[in-house]
Amino acid sequence: MILVLKQNPEKSKVETLIKMLNEQGLATNVSEGESHTIIGLIGDTSRLPVDLISAVDIVENVTRISEPFKAANRKMHPEDSIIDCSGVKVGEGLFQVIAGPCSVESEEQIIEVAKDVKASGATLLRGGAFKPRTSPYAFQGLHADGLKLLLEAKKETGLPIVTEIMNVNHLDLFADVDVIQVGARNMQNFDLLKELGKCRKPILLKRGLANTMEEFLMSAEYIMAGGNNNVILCERGIRTFETKTRNTLDLSAVPMLKKLSHLPVVIDPSHATGISWMVEPLAKAAVAVGADGLMIEVHNNPAKALCDGAQSLNPVQFDTLMKDIKRRVEFEGKKM
Amino acid sequence: MILVLKQNPEKSKVETLIKMLNEQGLATNVSEGESHTIIGLIGDTSRLPVDLISAVDIVENVTRISEPFKAANRKMHPEDSIIDCSGVKVGEGLFQVIAGPCSVESEEQIIEVAKDVKASGATLLRGGAFKPRTSPYAFQGLHADGLKLLLEAKKETGLPIVTEIMNVNHLDLFADVDVIQVGARNMQNFDLLKELGKCRKPILLKRGLANTMEEFLMSAEYIMAGGNNNVILCERGIRTFETKTRNTLDLSAVPMLKKLSHLPVVIDPSHATGISWMVEPLAKAAVAVGADGLMIEVHNNPAKALCDGAQSLNPVQFDTLMKDIKRRVEFEGKKM
Amino acid sequence: MILVLKQNPEKSKVETLIKMLNEQGLATNVSEGESHTIIGLIGDTSRLPVDLISAVDIVENVTRISEPFKAANRKMHPEDSIIDCSGVKVGEGLFQVIAGPCSVESEEQIIEVAKDVKASGATLLRGGAFKPRTSPYAFQGLHADGLKLLLEAKKETGLPIVTEIMNVNHLDLFADVDVIQVGARNMQNFDLLKELGKCRKPILLKRGLANTMEEFLMSAEYIMAGGNNNVILCERGIRTFETKTRNTLDLSAVPMLKKLSHLPVVIDPSHATGISWMVEPLAKAAVAVGADGLMIEVHNNPAKALCDGAQSLNPVQFDTLMKDIKRRVEFEGKKM
Amino acid sequence: MILVLKQNPEKSKVETLIKMLNEQGLATNVSEGESHTIIGLIGDTSRLPVDLISAVDIVENVTRISEPFKAANRKMHPEDSIIDCSGVKVGEGLFQVIAGPCSVESEEQIIEVAKDVKASGATLLRGGAFKPRTSPYAFQGLHADGLKLLLEAKKETGLPIVTEIMNVNHLDLFADVDVIQVGARNMQNFDLLKELGKCRKPILLKRGLANTMEEFLMSAEYIMAGGNNNVILCERGIRTFETKTRNTLDLSAVPMLKKLSHLPVVIDPSHATGISWMVEPLAKAAVAVGADGLMIEVHNNPAKALCDGAQSLNPVQFDTLMKDIKRRVEFEGKKM
Repeated sequence: MILVLKQNPEKSKVETLIKMLNEQGLATNVSEGESHTIIGLIGDTSRLPVDLISAVDIVENVTRISEPFKAANRKMHPEDSIIDCSGVKVGEGLFQVIAGPCSVESEEQIIEVAKDVKASGATLLRGGAFKPRTSPYAFQGLHADGLKLLLEAKKETGLPIVTEIMNVNHLDLFADVDVIQVGARNMQNFDLLKELGKCRKPILLKRGLANTMEEFLMSAEYIMAGGNNNVILCERGIRTFETKTRNTLDLSAVPMLKKLSHLPVVIDPSHATGISWMVEPLAKAAVAVGADGLMIEVHNNPAKALCDGAQSLNPVQFDTLMKDIKRRVEFEGKKM
Repeated sequence: MILVLKQNPEKSKVETLIKMLNEQGLATNVSEGESHTIIGLIGDTSRLPVDLISAVDIVENVTRISEPFKAANRKMHPEDSIIDCSGVKVGEGLFQVIAGPCSVESEEQIIEVAKDVKASGATLLRGGAFKPRTSPYAFQGLHADGLKLLLEAKKETGLPIVTEIMNVNHLDLFADVDVIQVGARNMQNFDLLKELGKCRKPILLKRGLANTMEEFLMSAEYIMAGGNNNVILCERGIRTFETKTRNTLDLSAVPMLKKLSHLPVVIDPSHATGISWMVEPLAKAAVAVGADGLMIEVHNNPAKALCDGAQSLNPVQFDTLMKDIKRRVEFEGKKM
Repeated sequence: MILVLKQNPEKSKVETLIKMLNEQGLATNVSEGESHTIIGLIGDTSRLPVDLISAVDIVENVTRISEPFKAANRKMHPEDSIIDCSGVKVGEGLFQVIAGPCSVESEEQIIEVAKDVKASGATLLRGGAFKPRTSPYAFQGLHADGLKLLLEAKKETGLPIVTEIMNVNHLDLFADVDVIQVGARNMQNFDLLKELGKCRKPILLKRGLANTMEEFLMSAEYIMAGGNNNVILCERGIRTFETKTRNTLDLSAVPMLKKLSHLPVVIDPSHATGISWMVEPLAKAAVAVGADGLMIEVHNNPAKALCDGAQSLNPVQFDTLMKDIKRRVEFEGKKM
Repeated sequence: MILVLKQNPEKSKVETLIKMLNEQGLATNVSEGESHTIIGLIGDTSRLPVDLISAVDIVENVTRISEPFKAANRKMHPEDSIIDCSGVKVGEGLFQVIAGPCSVESEEQIIEVAKDVKASGATLLRGGAFKPRTSPYAFQGLHADGLKLLLEAKKETGLPIVTEIMNVNHLDLFADVDVIQVGARNMQNFDLLKELGKCRKPILLKRGLANTMEEFLMSAEYIMAGGNNNVILCERGIRTFETKTRNTLDLSAVPMLKKLSHLPVVIDPSHATGISWMVEPLAKAAVAVGADGLMIEVHNNPAKALCDGAQSLNPVQFDTLMKDIKRRVEFEGKKM
């Protein structure tokens, strides 16, 4: 970290500042230029409150040189991490597709969808049992019963399951879940992240709607700081002024996150756009931009046959998409 | 809710759609215009999944006519709500100032600040015991010890205390807290909101960094749907592209939220701007725009005397501000 | 357009409203439902001031059913438009790469880059002669001299040239330019758009930093309303809260714009990210998502050999990228 | 400006970099720390392309210490600027209200509104003759005829007029206009700004929808660099994700712009919110936050009596507002 001081600072204040920094265990390297005095800090600055230092009245400017994340940082771990999800490996040259319905609705539904998506080549089954809904009056999921049905579907198909947790107190219920998802709205629910850091299950961490990539990696860091390195990042659209799509899928996050971190990155085009016909072009783009996988909503409910538009694909559409995605994954020299 | 159908829809599909809507307990009023067929829905549409209906392939457009929030809606409760915070009333013609340090650091610190802010006219004491921090390596607060110190300060000064909860499991620890704060990052931690809906304590709910006013009111609705009507809304800046201020304080939210809802609205200029000298002008604007109170960070730590800039005011600055705010509150015909 | 009236509107006000609408040449179709009265408008509503109608005090809600753009609308022109840029065709199954330096600096520079990018497969040459710069003190381009140098480079290589106009008074200078670019900052410089509508040259219209896709198409409509249908849309990143990239490239705009409009869409990954190493992954994604071309900055200035990072590729990097892009364009079944 | 170099840079590259910087007329002050080499630049760095320097491969980080604007910078001009608008002074302890209709529609209309707003205390008359409209099919203003009508209204009432320019070629038409407005969409129409820098008329410069305060001041700098120091800044809302208001009024811009610059700042609550009932609370807040004036839309068209809601106030509402604003301006110790 580099501190640039304001012009002609009081000597006593500079000394007090340096003393304060030394007390934080940091060595300082002061260089007095013609116009500005610069203090370079040597040591672990990750605990240092940047806000506070910036606020010291003789400080003009604070420049952080190293990223604030460590365990998630590629500099600390140059090779790609591969996350083992009950045998399904996510990362590096492997490409995985997580598919399934938005919500688990019934045994028949989840098992049928599970069979369908497996037949089309999905390797992980998603399905919501606890649903974060903007309205308290909307359907909130089948809860523990939903988890049981997911496990039924896993037994039938062998697909490891991915499902969202909303409450630290539910961790016991997730004992047999293969991958625990943290939703966008809970990306900075730090107590939940810390608790997940104590387990060793893979965590699929979704980027918050208005969170920067750095904050996203800091949330991964929360989990990893607890000792759980099994984190999969998931970009699912950020909130912008555009209204034609539900959110704006930030595909530039894939190469940037993979540059900054060794963790795998998957893309959820279903939630990002909220429009089923947009899933296909953005899934293709996700493969090309270097993502490690996709998360796609697939429904299979004859009662909803009317719905052709929403964000879910039906199994036939999903099957067509998967045939195309396989060709593309091979084109990239990856395995699926 | 009004559905506009696409031109020349298949008759059978229209019938299926109407049947589906009727099954949801809604009466339908169909009118066939020259160019478009329109279906008006009569009944409680708050449970209806708008996304799903929009996605029905014969539907061109869905227009919601009534707001999705009920308990928080001013239409249901035309008078302003007044929230009683252990005797300190927030709302309507009353104006309250919540002040105190970012974090509780020591008994000496919190008691001294509490005395100072009380002397200047603050009526509620804030102080963080559980701190949501972007980095897992940053100071996370004194936790239960911090709560104890806050209660000490309350005993000394009589000021009711406001402090943030981050975990549903900590509710017991908050038994003697007067007002429980839900931070911006937890605004859509729905499980936490539901749990707070079961208690009867006042909840200070902060707007999420990237949440619309409607989502904000829906989060209030989560608490109120559980039976706890004691919600105070707090605007604390939203995330925009601007970088000169930490966030962009949305003062237009005050009149809009008060139009849509009967709940009181307070403003937190300290967090919104992240800059202490901006607290004063924005606090003045908050009074003028019709806010019901302010939440202001005040530190009192001689060891940090170097820091004149950050987002906290020192007690002298706070005292000066309060003298001015009192004049302004009186000018508005309110009491403080 | 559908107007939903508030409950129990005054009869006289409804009549006045209908009269006003009829005076605008619109037929009205009134249907009185149990709870709401709905007025459907038949005729050309594109001139109707939606803001004003929304503000009529008996109007609850105005829903526009048809898009406000006509000439640019795919409904009016179902097949893809192909824009002929002095023999280079942009659109449909063809994929073009526009490449060249940010600014034209010297004859040697522009001719050398032109030869290099042509050799690598670029089919259009870009280069700025008039440069929109945030600071009045920054280099503003070579102006007319820059245009002359571009024409030299065209003579040498045969590549049609694309360059930005900033002032309606410069149109004469652009007489021999093949494609006139309108920059992001001028996307809503309506007087400039109108003037460009009078010529028949292809216009490369860049999306504004904070403009919605609808506004983008309305700006295309300004040009087309004047009779010039030769518009190429260019997505170059939108402004969001993210800071790791200069802007956020909105690749979902490609399928959405192509759904709404028949105009070709090209992607500028250089300006979107501001980082040269991100050009490659996003260029790949642009091909996969269905873009009709790319616009890429290439510099060739030995004096700047130090710069390996900025948004420009050097000729060797560009050549490597082009080899890969060609394979991808073929994979998509398009021609380059 | 401070450059921090990457660890262990090649000596030859450092030398080349320093040579390049010196060639730009900058002195350099190199200090080699334990971990990083730092280069301080001394001299005028406003012409230096920061992007390019950042991209030099041995450069880790570039920190600008001084703001890139000069003429607009308060450091260069510590006292508030007062802009004389044909006798009406804007800035410092004076508070002016600019009022009038969105568009000039007829002689009767503009003269009637002018008389009304003058009677209520407005000191400048606004009215659009050239209207920037998203749609080419919408009413674009009366153009030269509109300007003539404004001048009629000025003759009748003595109120100096403020009206928007959209085209450099119209400058002659604006010869008798008192204050020339640059709209939000043209804030970075640099050729227009340069042309306005050549005249000496006051320019009311509106902040672009998605422009930072720094970019806003740089656009003021464009005008001032030409020698015209008569710039009034106008904040009129920025584009965010919120949809309840048309834009989000950024009142924190007032103290920040006034800290950074000596130019006066006025607030346009009508355009910011797009909702007439919100004009009042936000106008009050604007006075309190320290703005130097307001710009308010007032219509006076009996034919539109139906419209009570849109962003314009009617003369009675405006008169009521002005009575209140006067009290507030006095409360602030300013004159109106």
